[in-house]
Amino acid sequence: MREGYGVTPRLHCFGESGNAYKAALTLTLCGIAWEPVWVDFFRGGARRTEYLRLNPMGEVPALDLGDRVLSQSGAIQLWAAERTGRLLGPDREETLRWLFFDNHKVSAQAGMLRFLGNFLAPDRRDPAVLAWLSGRLRAALKVLEARLSEGFWLAGEEPTIADLACCGYLFYPEPFGFDRADWPAIDRWLDRIAALPGWQHPYDLMPRREGASPSLGPLT
Amino acid sequence: MREGYGVTPRLHCFGESGNAYKAALTLTLCGIAWEPVWVDFFRGGARRTEYLRLNPMGEVPALDLGDRVLSQSGAIQLWAAERTGRLLGPDREETLRWLFFDNHKVSAQAGMLRFLGNFLAPDRRDPAVLAWLSGRLRAALKVLEARLSEGFWLAGEEPTIADLACCGYLFYPEPFGFDRADWPAIDRWLDRIAALPGWQHPYDLMPRREGASPSLGPLT
Repeated sequence: MREGYGVTPRLHCFGESGNAYKAALTLTLCGIAWEPVWVDFFRGGARRTEYLRLNPMGEVPALDLGDRVLSQSGAIQLWAAERTGRLLGPDREETLRWLFFDNHKVSAQAGMLRFLGNFLAPDRRDPAVLAWLSGRLRAALKVLEARLSEGFWLAGEEPTIADLACCGYLFYPEPFGFDRADWPAIDRWLDRIAALPGWQHPYDLMPRREGASPSLGPLT
Repeated sequence: MREGYGVTPRLHCFGESGNAYKAALTLTLCGIAWEPVWVDFFRGGARRTEYLRLNPMGEVPALDLGDRVLSQSGAIQLWAAERTGRLLGPDREETLRWLFFDNHKVSAQAGMLRFLGNFLAPDRRDPAVLAWLSGRLRAALKVLEARLSEGFWLAGEEPTIADLACCGYLFYPEPFGFDRADWPAIDRWLDRIAALPGWQHPYDLMPRREGASPSLGPLT
C-alpha cells in the first residue's frame, strides 16, 4: 500500500543499524512506502555538517518527510503506527511500556555491545566495558524471556511496534553474546516476527556499505 | 487540581531515582494528585516477588492506578500529559523525539554513572566502565547544550515532558561528572525548569530511605 504523501519518505539508515531497522521494518509492515538513503556511519557520515543539519542529534535513523524530519526510532515507529492505525496493539499503554523498555534496556545495550565487539578496531574494545554491557543485556533479555514465556507478543495478543523495537538487534548474525539457543521463548518469538507478511532481514531491508558481506562482515 | 480517579494513583518510587523523578514531577506539574510508595531499592526492594507481581520489569517507577499498573517513566509521562492535555508541547513528534533521546542517551548513561559512582560499594566500581559511560554522557549533553543554546525548551516554545525527562538526573547533588558550570545553556534551562510553578527537587518530591542525608548521602 502506498500512502498519499507529497514525497516518498526517505529513511536515512544503514544496514548494520538495529535502530534504523526498527524504523524500516515498522514503515514496511505499516504499508508505508519509503526509500532508503544510505549513511556512511562507519566513516563518520552521521557527524558531517550536512547530516547534522538534517538531524542535530547526529544519529541514525532519521526520516525525512519533505516538510519535516523525524528522528529517534521510537518516535518514528509511533508516528507510523498512529498514522496507519497498525501495530499499536489493543493496549497502547502496554505497547508504550515495552517500547520504552527497549530503548532503555534492550537495544541501548545490545546495539552498543554489538558495535564495540564487531565494528570497532579490537584495540579500542575494553573487555571490562564489554563484560559490564553483557551483564546489563542479560538482565534485560531475562525480562523479555519471562514475558514471552507467557504470551506470543510483548504487549498483548498481537504484534506491535514494541515487538519490532525489542527485536531490533536480535536478527543480526554478528556475535555479541546473544545466542537464540539460550533463550527459547525469545527464539520462538523471533520466528513469529520473521513469519509476519512483509518481514525482511535487516540486511535485505537496508543498504550496506560497498564490499560488505551480505551475511557476516564486521569491520576490524 | 485533583483528578477524578477512583483511587489516588500510587507511584512506587524512591528519592534517589531520576527515572522515578521524571514520573513524579510530570504527575505533579500535570496537576494529578498522587501518593508515593517508597521502594527499598538499595536493599533489593524492586526484585522481591511482591514487587515483581506489580512490575515484572523489576524497575522503579511503577504507577498503580488501582485497576492497572503503568511502568517505564516515558510511558507514565506520556499517559499523564495526554490525560490532562498538558506538557505535550505544540509539536508532539518533536516532544517524542526528545523523550526517546532521553531514554536512549541521557538518563540511561547519567543514571547508571551516578548509581555506580555513588550508591555501589567502591570495590564494585570499574574505572573503565565509569570512563566509558562518562564519554557517552558527555556526547549526549553536547547535543542538549547545542539545542538549548538555540531555544528555551527542548521541543519548542514551551516546557514539555521531554524537558522533564532529560533533566531527570541533573538536579541531584551526588557527583557523577556533570557540573552545571561546564554547560551554560543546560544550566539556564535547569533554572527555568526549577522556576515552573509546582516544581520540586527530587529529594523533596519523593521519600528516601531512613537516615539518608537530605542533601548528600551516597551509600558506600
